[in-house]
Amino acid sequence: MALDAIADQLDRFAEFQYFIEASAVTVSALSGMIAAREKQLDIVGTYFIAFITAFGGGTLRDVLLNRRPLFWVSHQEYPILIFILSILFLYYSQRLTPVKPLARKSFNLIDALGLALFSISGTSYAIADRIPPFIAVLFGVITGVFGGVLRDVTLIEIPVIFRQSTLYATCSFLGGWTYLLFLSFKLSPSFAGAAGFTAVVVLRMLALHYNLKLPVLYSKDVVDPFSRLPKKDL
Amino acid sequence: MALDAIADQLDRFAEFQYFIEASAVTVSALSGMIAAREKQLDIVGTYFIAFITAFGGGTLRDVLLNRRPLFWVSHQEYPILIFILSILFLYYSQRLTPVKPLARKSFNLIDALGLALFSISGTSYAIADRIPPFIAVLFGVITGVFGGVLRDVTLIEIPVIFRQSTLYATCSFLGGWTYLLFLSFKLSPSFAGAAGFTAVVVLRMLALHYNLKLPVLYSKDVVDPFSRLPKKDL
Amino acid sequence: MALDAIADQLDRFAEFQYFIEASAVTVSALSGMIAAREKQLDIVGTYFIAFITAFGGGTLRDVLLNRRPLFWVSHQEYPILIFILSILFLYYSQRLTPVKPLARKSFNLIDALGLALFSISGTSYAIADRIPPFIAVLFGVITGVFGGVLRDVTLIEIPVIFRQSTLYATCSFLGGWTYLLFLSFKLSPSFAGAAGFTAVVVLRMLALHYNLKLPVLYSKDVVDPFSRLPKKDL
Repeated sequence: MALDAIADQLDRFAEFQYFIEASAVTVSALSGMIAAREKQLDIVGTYFIAFITAFGGGTLRDVLLNRRPLFWVSHQEYPILIFILSILFLYYSQRLTPVKPLARKSFNLIDALGLALFSISGTSYAIADRIPPFIAVLFGVITGVFGGVLRDVTLIEIPVIFRQSTLYATCSFLGGWTYLLFLSFKLSPSFAGAAGFTAVVVLRMLALHYNLKLPVLYSKDVVDPFSRLPKKDL
Repeated sequence: MALDAIADQLDRFAEFQYFIEASAVTVSALSGMIAAREKQLDIVGTYFIAFITAFGGGTLRDVLLNRRPLFWVSHQEYPILIFILSILFLYYSQRLTPVKPLARKSFNLIDALGLALFSISGTSYAIADRIPPFIAVLFGVITGVFGGVLRDVTLIEIPVIFRQSTLYATCSFLGGWTYLLFLSFKLSPSFAGAAGFTAVVVLRMLALHYNLKLPVLYSKDVVDPFSRLPKKDL
Repeated sequence: MALDAIADQLDRFAEFQYFIEASAVTVSALSGMIAAREKQLDIVGTYFIAFITAFGGGTLRDVLLNRRPLFWVSHQEYPILIFILSILFLYYSQRLTPVKPLARKSFNLIDALGLALFSISGTSYAIADRIPPFIAVLFGVITGVFGGVLRDVTLIEIPVIFRQSTLYATCSFLGGWTYLLFLSFKLSPSFAGAAGFTAVVVLRMLALHYNLKLPVLYSKDVVDPFSRLPKKDL
């Protein structure tokens, strides 16, 4: 019953969920604002990019799973918070002094917590819909990373997580499998969720610390087996 | 009861709704065709860009609110109209003489009427779904402006309303709040709707006349407080 | 009753549907991988682009028609298949020798079969929802071609089927109408479906063989009737 005790302990972790969620939404929105700033957008652009970054992944998950109300519709405070932050960012971001390395590490940690929360919650919503495991893990990844994908595409850049990310989607993917593995051992959902959550956070912080990246194996100077195919017209 | 009388009068305004809607769809589609023309697209591209511009905002609203059938599915005549217009545009647009300033003003007015109609209808659908006010106003903005956003992204351009628009989304946003403000005074929905509608049209025509734009406050030559953050990898 | 006999015969064609579907998904995914390779993406990018290309059109159709579960959620084997293929592609694609013209023709034929299958199935789902004919044919086209549109936009390219395609969307459109025309003659749905299917395949192979393309009629050196309009701000 040691595990149950741990599970009970971890259930209390749920109390922190709202705090993590709000922090993660703020950090995601901030990454959108920074990207909007690089493109010299006005307040409308800054707000919508922050909005898309923070809510895009969860919205896509809810639309694909047909869940309503959407995450940000039932939490009016999140869109309002981002609205206020966007205005503050527009007026004050350039008066700030550079962020210290400590702040940078906090930023990364909050983002990793958010990625973990969205990945495990996305997977668990899919499991609750009796969706098969591989697809359920993909739903976790979609929830965790598609806000950033939509931000990049809207700003006309190839999504960074498709190119050079430090194992961002990979941590989400492995964390989802950790969660399902523990569930398959008939452990309590809270314990399994905490295990998956921890796996995402630890893997992500390790990947950032050691600057781990997935290999890009394609090279341009080899024979292209598909060079004669009508590449694009499909 | 003066207000009720006005409201009754305004109810008859609803008779004009279809006319405004059809005109607004035509003008939106035309703006899509002009953008498609700049990119030298063929008829398939011209039609789909016109389609996305005209129906994109309403479709996104309906998907997010889970309303079916979609606006253009129950009005088969709109997609057919755009199809015919796209073919005519492809063949004849370059034979026309430049549009006179008068035509330009009509074009702007019709577009402002459409923005107003879509903004107020989007907000009212959200209100009917018991969605809280700030989010309801956002739904009005999404309905009014996301057709143009999707057009720009599909044509690989940063959405113009995020950069240099003459208060396009802003008029929609303020009109939505006007509508909700009048509703909160327990005025008839028709009256409140007409007030919001009028606010959008008047603000938009003023913004165009005086070339009002939102400020872009970011400058590149100041210290970037986030320069040490891993900007994109989020 | 000759037609009924043909229809009975054609019903057996349904047995081949799964085989065609799996082949078409594979070919679509492969076209996504080739595009991902050109942009030097990593495994995450390669997989998601392959995924979007293979499932994007059907997913958009299902979301717009509000059908669940989604096509790839109930067929877990497809996303897993693409996952394995993406890894193999990443590691081995550059060791392969150039594909022979025969392989190229098979590739084109499988893709045409997939386009036909997705076009007719998309149209038939819409018809089953009592959607009017023009819109139903559009749903077939969306199912057949929007995977490629989403692939291109995510990779920050104007969709190729909007610019220079060899009648890709056009074959889907004409095949959909062939299907509806035969249905309107009160022929069996199987027979009508087979007729539409055949129309798409034959038209597409003819278009590829003769390199048929839609005209791009716009030229830049004529008077632009809309040059004085505020083109983008709509």
